[in-house]
Amino acid sequence: MKPFIHEDFLLQSDAARQLYHEHAAKQPIIDYHCHLNPAYVAVDHRFDNLGEIWLEGDHYKWRAMRTNGIEEKYCTGKESSDWEKFEKWAQTVPYTMRNPLYHWTHLELKSAFGVEKLLDPSTAREIYDSCTEKLRTPEYSARGLMKMFNVKVVCTTDDPIDSLEHHLSLKQEGFEVKVLPTWRPDKAMAVENPTEYRKYVEKLSEVSGVAIRNFRDLIEALRNRHEFFASVGCKLSDHGLEEFYAEEFGEKEIATIFDKVYGGNELTGGEIRKFKSAMLYEGALMDWEKGWTQQFHYGVIRNNNTRLFNQLGPDTGFDSMGDFTVAKSISRFFDSLDIHNKLARSIIYNLNPRDNDMIATMIGNFQDGSVAGKIQFGSGWWFLDQKRGMEAQMNSLSNLGLLSRFVGMLTDSRSFLSYPRHEYFRRILCNLIGDDLEKGLLPASEMAFLGEMVENISYHNANKFFNF
Amino acid sequence: MKPFIHEDFLLQSDAARQLYHEHAAKQPIIDYHCHLNPAYVAVDHRFDNLGEIWLEGDHYKWRAMRTNGIEEKYCTGKESSDWEKFEKWAQTVPYTMRNPLYHWTHLELKSAFGVEKLLDPSTAREIYDSCTEKLRTPEYSARGLMKMFNVKVVCTTDDPIDSLEHHLSLKQEGFEVKVLPTWRPDKAMAVENPTEYRKYVEKLSEVSGVAIRNFRDLIEALRNRHEFFASVGCKLSDHGLEEFYAEEFGEKEIATIFDKVYGGNELTGGEIRKFKSAMLYEGALMDWEKGWTQQFHYGVIRNNNTRLFNQLGPDTGFDSMGDFTVAKSISRFFDSLDIHNKLARSIIYNLNPRDNDMIATMIGNFQDGSVAGKIQFGSGWWFLDQKRGMEAQMNSLSNLGLLSRFVGMLTDSRSFLSYPRHEYFRRILCNLIGDDLEKGLLPASEMAFLGEMVENISYHNANKFFNF
Amino acid sequence: MKPFIHEDFLLQSDAARQLYHEHAAKQPIIDYHCHLNPAYVAVDHRFDNLGEIWLEGDHYKWRAMRTNGIEEKYCTGKESSDWEKFEKWAQTVPYTMRNPLYHWTHLELKSAFGVEKLLDPSTAREIYDSCTEKLRTPEYSARGLMKMFNVKVVCTTDDPIDSLEHHLSLKQEGFEVKVLPTWRPDKAMAVENPTEYRKYVEKLSEVSGVAIRNFRDLIEALRNRHEFFASVGCKLSDHGLEEFYAEEFGEKEIATIFDKVYGGNELTGGEIRKFKSAMLYEGALMDWEKGWTQQFHYGVIRNNNTRLFNQLGPDTGFDSMGDFTVAKSISRFFDSLDIHNKLARSIIYNLNPRDNDMIATMIGNFQDGSVAGKIQFGSGWWFLDQKRGMEAQMNSLSNLGLLSRFVGMLTDSRSFLSYPRHEYFRRILCNLIGDDLEKGLLPASEMAFLGEMVENISYHNANKFFNF
Repeated sequence: MKPFIHEDFLLQSDAARQLYHEHAAKQPIIDYHCHLNPAYVAVDHRFDNLGEIWLEGDHYKWRAMRTNGIEEKYCTGKESSDWEKFEKWAQTVPYTMRNPLYHWTHLELKSAFGVEKLLDPSTAREIYDSCTEKLRTPEYSARGLMKMFNVKVVCTTDDPIDSLEHHLSLKQEGFEVKVLPTWRPDKAMAVENPTEYRKYVEKLSEVSGVAIRNFRDLIEALRNRHEFFASVGCKLSDHGLEEFYAEEFGEKEIATIFDKVYGGNELTGGEIRKFKSAMLYEGALMDWEKGWTQQFHYGVIRNNNTRLFNQLGPDTGFDSMGDFTVAKSISRFFDSLDIHNKLARSIIYNLNPRDNDMIATMIGNFQDGSVAGKIQFGSGWWFLDQKRGMEAQMNSLSNLGLLSRFVGMLTDSRSFLSYPRHEYFRRILCNLIGDDLEKGLLPASEMAFLGEMVENISYHNANKFFNF
Repeated sequence: MKPFIHEDFLLQSDAARQLYHEHAAKQPIIDYHCHLNPAYVAVDHRFDNLGEIWLEGDHYKWRAMRTNGIEEKYCTGKESSDWEKFEKWAQTVPYTMRNPLYHWTHLELKSAFGVEKLLDPSTAREIYDSCTEKLRTPEYSARGLMKMFNVKVVCTTDDPIDSLEHHLSLKQEGFEVKVLPTWRPDKAMAVENPTEYRKYVEKLSEVSGVAIRNFRDLIEALRNRHEFFASVGCKLSDHGLEEFYAEEFGEKEIATIFDKVYGGNELTGGEIRKFKSAMLYEGALMDWEKGWTQQFHYGVIRNNNTRLFNQLGPDTGFDSMGDFTVAKSISRFFDSLDIHNKLARSIIYNLNPRDNDMIATMIGNFQDGSVAGKIQFGSGWWFLDQKRGMEAQMNSLSNLGLLSRFVGMLTDSRSFLSYPRHEYFRRILCNLIGDDLEKGLLPASEMAFLGEMVENISYHNANKFFNF
Repeated sequence: MKPFIHEDFLLQSDAARQLYHEHAAKQPIIDYHCHLNPAYVAVDHRFDNLGEIWLEGDHYKWRAMRTNGIEEKYCTGKESSDWEKFEKWAQTVPYTMRNPLYHWTHLELKSAFGVEKLLDPSTAREIYDSCTEKLRTPEYSARGLMKMFNVKVVCTTDDPIDSLEHHLSLKQEGFEVKVLPTWRPDKAMAVENPTEYRKYVEKLSEVSGVAIRNFRDLIEALRNRHEFFASVGCKLSDHGLEEFYAEEFGEKEIATIFDKVYGGNELTGGEIRKFKSAMLYEGALMDWEKGWTQQFHYGVIRNNNTRLFNQLGPDTGFDSMGDFTVAKSISRFFDSLDIHNKLARSIIYNLNPRDNDMIATMIGNFQDGSVAGKIQFGSGWWFLDQKRGMEAQMNSLSNLGLLSRFVGMLTDSRSFLSYPRHEYFRRILCNLIGDDLEKGLLPASEMAFLGEMVENISYHNANKFFNF
């Protein structure tokens, strides 16, 4: 019996196998959006054990464990050892069959460690020990893993007040993998909490050297940091949004709102939306001036579980899809920039797949022939970063836009073990195209073009698009 | 040529066939949500003919007949005989090809009556006569049909003011199939019509022995009945909702709203929402105290056709899917209970499948490790109780949660002939898993685990989850 | 190697091939909704070259070209020649693989011109020249193309103030293809711009001979034109709507709103909705009186790109799907007519496929047995007029209604080369049914019925339904 993860995993047709092995597999990785800790790269972190690298901070796994009836102490509890947590995870793994975790787990075991056994209680100890042993070798350090997976560029996600010291030291050192920052000014927009917001603005003032007394100063301080980010090699911005904000606003109005929140007063819902509209707009101008690409991740409802939020904090597995109505706002936002010919290259990632087709048609409104695929529909994000989610995104994009111009996959991950997701994506991409070829939906004579297209989506499109 | 419904119907792969025949088919049925009339079980009702058991109250069939151009008198008209109606139904059946009615019809004919011929005008008389003859034998009584289909438990749907006399007599008698009530307090929330509502509250007062003068009395009366339901074996509540209601409310405010409506005054939309929010919350506390499971069926727009509503009343085939925005309300509602650690096991059923993925991620927010699969995404409901609907629900649940912990199928039906829907569901489940195995998306080595998983979803998960 | 478009294109099973070749392919075409210019038929227009017939006004192709990085001057620019534009289009074609444009392009080349080569830069000149040569022969005139594709009826889309001179002359002449007008009163509802609206109403007054001083006069003028349209053979109305409008309104209120806008004053959002509600209602009464079928195309957000709208005007490729909440409005609108027993046969076309299932259940609310398939779910519209879109529409309709009563395909096109879309649709329809047969989801014994069903959906259902 073939191992579960074998060379033709996910590849159902001859054409798919040919496209994958001859074209996709050979391409290097550009991971243009992730949440890696750059310090880990700078110090070339070594991981203590498989539990640490896999379970620390992995809210996907925690969520599955909780659903499987595993107590919180084995998910996030400090009282449990890495091994104890891993054991509970191993116990959960068979119950994740048909969930992407089942694929990801075994793909990572196979690709990174060569493990072909399935993880379950009977194999847990053996797998833990053998992988842990490997993790302690230099090949499995943070940098080792990046090289193992042929990574050329990674873009981390960074706050405007971040010193980028690790990015700078890696640049100076000349580390062979480009580790670039991404401008993520979410906190500069988080006016919901006046006290926290004031603290943030004060830090921003300090870091930028710009005394912030009003809204214009705020923008100047941000612009100062934006330029600093550019100097360190930043090519992308990113925004985590619940909805899109595109209210009409006036300069004075925003100045007043800023004064109000900076003075410690809570804003109304309407003021918050106006302020965020202004901030998104101002940031978009900066991105356009620099020739960056702006990313928008929208549609999540965060921290739904107050009890466990109070206990565990954010990003612990209690977020889910919203069902927001956003088409008109997205349109207005992009139009407000495009009308001045100041719309940067952009990527929209939606969380609720019911909006896939809407987004895939929305991007077409702002394609203006200046750059191929100028406005991108982002690859399946978060909950959608799985076979069905990726297929749905690629099918919508194909039918309503041009798949050929897609900049492809990113991990969005905190883990150095997530690079096999690129392999996963590429197999799925090749399988989709291969299936079309099998069914005569694409002409068999065009294998050369399709091979090139697969190479482009795997690597070249992103490489050109972002100007790394 | 094989008959249409044969032993491998819907099973496209060897693995699917093995999973179904060796695992799923053998499991008994737990029908934990239905609308059977318990009196029919208590008196062991005999059905007069195939027209009666099939067409009386079956708004699915009426809807199809109307779409097929059949006059109302052959759907619901008292002037038409059972045979006349059946004849028109038989005439419609071929026109339902690709609609679930075509499968349900022939599955019921085959499973209950051994009929392999297709129903159409040429076979109508013969099928009507032979099935009618069988229906008049003891094997085809209400109880006979339950035994024929290996039913262990059914949960009916009952109003808080119901005497549950039939449930009690069945319990006392010791009938081998558990027939348990379900708490469905929709009328206790139906404040849209003050006159009807007052009548209802007065009846509730009478039945509970609690004088209802204010909102707290109302809750006490309901709690009294809730305890009575528990004493008769009730383990589930159910709520039919247009949207989810999770407005903020204060005790005094609700008391005032109750006084207003009880005094015969129409409430505003805002007051109705607040009142329903309070009622849902209070009911949820009771369910949690008892260790019950609460069910929510939401998203329908009822009685869209006023002309035919005036003529025929509710539940006659004029309901359809809404397109409500509910994610934040659902989140708030569950959170308001969970924050006090008083969230009962729950099942959410959505009517519009565009919300499948949102719901499948929403339930994850409130999985807390205390019970495996504590918050469930309910099986395809109403319009979605068909192959594509079930597949979509199971695919969303699989990708975004744990299919392995799913409590599976229920009929939601008024008919004693609907049990083959469990067979239908199980075949579809096995086919999904079998297809994954065929494609290498699940490891072939894990057939034993998958067989057990199929048994669990067919029977054991529900049996454990509901504590019958 | 078989050519890309061959006789069994899209037909994956024996059953599909049999259904298509023996049943679907032979049926004539009824194109009951299109945007052909009737003058072209009247004068039997000859096309100058392949660039003209393909690229003039084709915003689908422009959109793809812009996405592919082609400058605007090669899409819509007057400074570029037909050949230059065609060359850029040919360059784009390979990049449209997996987009419907790739299929449409090669299907049109094959069906109309017998060209089996794939269009790309290497074949562009040869294909341009050979097709252009054919286009200059009588067989490829406007009328020639209609006959080539066995077209029996086309319904154009016309404004109430249109003289219908070309329809009249074709009728008088006795041209063998029925070219009928469709009543599209969008401009009579376009009260957003008071100045433009006044101009329109004045023209309407002139054309109808009804002095329009108030709302009732407006309706009388429209009714006058409606009767004129009927006299020319019109059987359908059509409405392009952003959302559905079903506000409550009173006669006086609407009269006041009309006076306000006619007097040059801007209306509020609420007034606009009320006015449109009234107009839709009044128009629906006229359609019902005449026994016409009313069509509703809803859900588009138009002119999203202001910069290019200012440059190029409407219908140039900058429209996209909205995400409106419409279920209750649709229900109210149909109910307001049905309650008086004045609901005409109707077709609803939605633009966002996330609403497919909602629409497919909504139509069931107003099926009353008077006409088979009285309320129709329209075939995949605009962005959804492609394989996946059509399949989704037909699967929703099948599962939630009766596919057998579907009136089938229409081109909605401005081009005389779009008739192969009917072939495309029929192949997809046969493939869906064939696949079900292959899998035993439909009984193999029923090929005769299914063959007839395919013929009905391809031709007879529409022919009967519209009373041409």
